[in-house]
Amino acid sequence: MTNNIVWHEHAVDKNARANALNQKPAVIWLTGLSGSGKSTIANLLEKKLFSESKKTYLLDGDNVRHGLCGDLGFDDKDRVENIRRISEVAKLFVDSGSIVITAFISPFQADRAYCRSLLDAGEFVEVFVDTPIEVCEKRDPKGLYKKARSGDIKHFTGIDSVYETPTTPEVHLTYIEESAEQTAERLFKLISEKGFI
Amino acid sequence: MTNNIVWHEHAVDKNARANALNQKPAVIWLTGLSGSGKSTIANLLEKKLFSESKKTYLLDGDNVRHGLCGDLGFDDKDRVENIRRISEVAKLFVDSGSIVITAFISPFQADRAYCRSLLDAGEFVEVFVDTPIEVCEKRDPKGLYKKARSGDIKHFTGIDSVYETPTTPEVHLTYIEESAEQTAERLFKLISEKGFI
Repeated sequence: MTNNIVWHEHAVDKNARANALNQKPAVIWLTGLSGSGKSTIANLLEKKLFSESKKTYLLDGDNVRHGLCGDLGFDDKDRVENIRRISEVAKLFVDSGSIVITAFISPFQADRAYCRSLLDAGEFVEVFVDTPIEVCEKRDPKGLYKKARSGDIKHFTGIDSVYETPTTPEVHLTYIEESAEQTAERLFKLISEKGFI
Repeated sequence: MTNNIVWHEHAVDKNARANALNQKPAVIWLTGLSGSGKSTIANLLEKKLFSESKKTYLLDGDNVRHGLCGDLGFDDKDRVENIRRISEVAKLFVDSGSIVITAFISPFQADRAYCRSLLDAGEFVEVFVDTPIEVCEKRDPKGLYKKARSGDIKHFTGIDSVYETPTTPEVHLTYIEESAEQTAERLFKLISEKGFI
C-alpha cells in the first residue's frame, strides 16, 4: 500500500446513498400505548412505502428485543438503554439512506428527544399513535393489560408506569374507528403531504 | 380497526427487499490487526460496490464506537459485547437487504463465529486481512503500537492481547506490496468470483 492512506474517511456518504436510492432518509418514530396499533400500522406503512419503491426498514420488538437488546430487561433503566440502542441503530440506517420505521411504546419524552438529537433537522418524524387506553385494553392482543391489572406484570405503561404524551409530535394520529389499512393510509398521506419522505 | 389485526408479522421481508435492490445481502467481515488496512480497504470496497449500484453500508469504529457502543470500554468483556452488538446490527442490515462491510480487529474466533451463527449460509464472508505485524507496526497510523510497546496502552492486540488467526476464512487476503486501491480491487474480484455478492 502507499503511504498516502487516509484513515477512516467514509468514501460513500449519506447524501450519495440517498441520491442513489432517490429518497429522503428519515426515522418514522411511532410511539403509543401497548395495543395502540403501532406494529400493525408500521407494517402496513412499510408495505405501502415498499410499493412506492422506497428503501425501508422496520425496527420493532421482534427484531430488536431478541437480538441487539436481548440482554436487557424491562425496568426503567433497561428501557432507557433499549431505546438508546434503537435510536443509535435508527441513525445508522438513516446514514445508510433508508427510511426507518420504529414501533416501540417509547413512553419517555427524554428518550424520544434523544433519538431526535442524533439526527439532522427534518429526519425525525414523531408519530403519536393516540389510541385511547380503553380501546387498547379492550383489544389487549397479548393479554398484557389483563396481567398488568392483576399485578402479574409490573411497570406496565399506562397502568403503573407513566406514558409521557408527546407534546409536539410531527404527526398526531388521532383514533378513528376504521381499518388498520385506512389508518396506515392516513399516516402515509400525512407524512407525504408534510414532506417528511 | 378491524379485529383481524395480525400482530408483528413483517409484511416486507429480506427476500422482497433484496429482490427490489437486485442484490444478494451479505456481511463482508474484515478482520485483522490494527494497521492492517481494514478501514481503508473497506472504504474502497464500498466505493467500488456503490459504483456497481449496490446498496451498501460500512460499520467501523467511527460510526459505532461513539454511538451504539459508546458505553463500552476496551477490556475483553466489553470487546466481546462490542462485537456482539455489531453482529446484531449487521444482521439487521442484511435483513434490510444491504451488503454490510465491517472493519474491526475482532481478534476472537468465538465472536466472529457468533456473527456467522446469526446469518444464513453464505451470508457471512470472513475476510482475513493478513498483513504481517511488522508492516502494521511500521505503519502505526495512530501511534498505537508505540504506546502499546511503551506500556501506555494495555491489552493491545498482537502485543499483549491475542489475535486468533482465522482458520478457514472465506477470503484470505494475503499481503502484497501494492496500493490500497489494488488490494480493494483484489478483494472485490475474490468475493465476486466466489459468488458472495
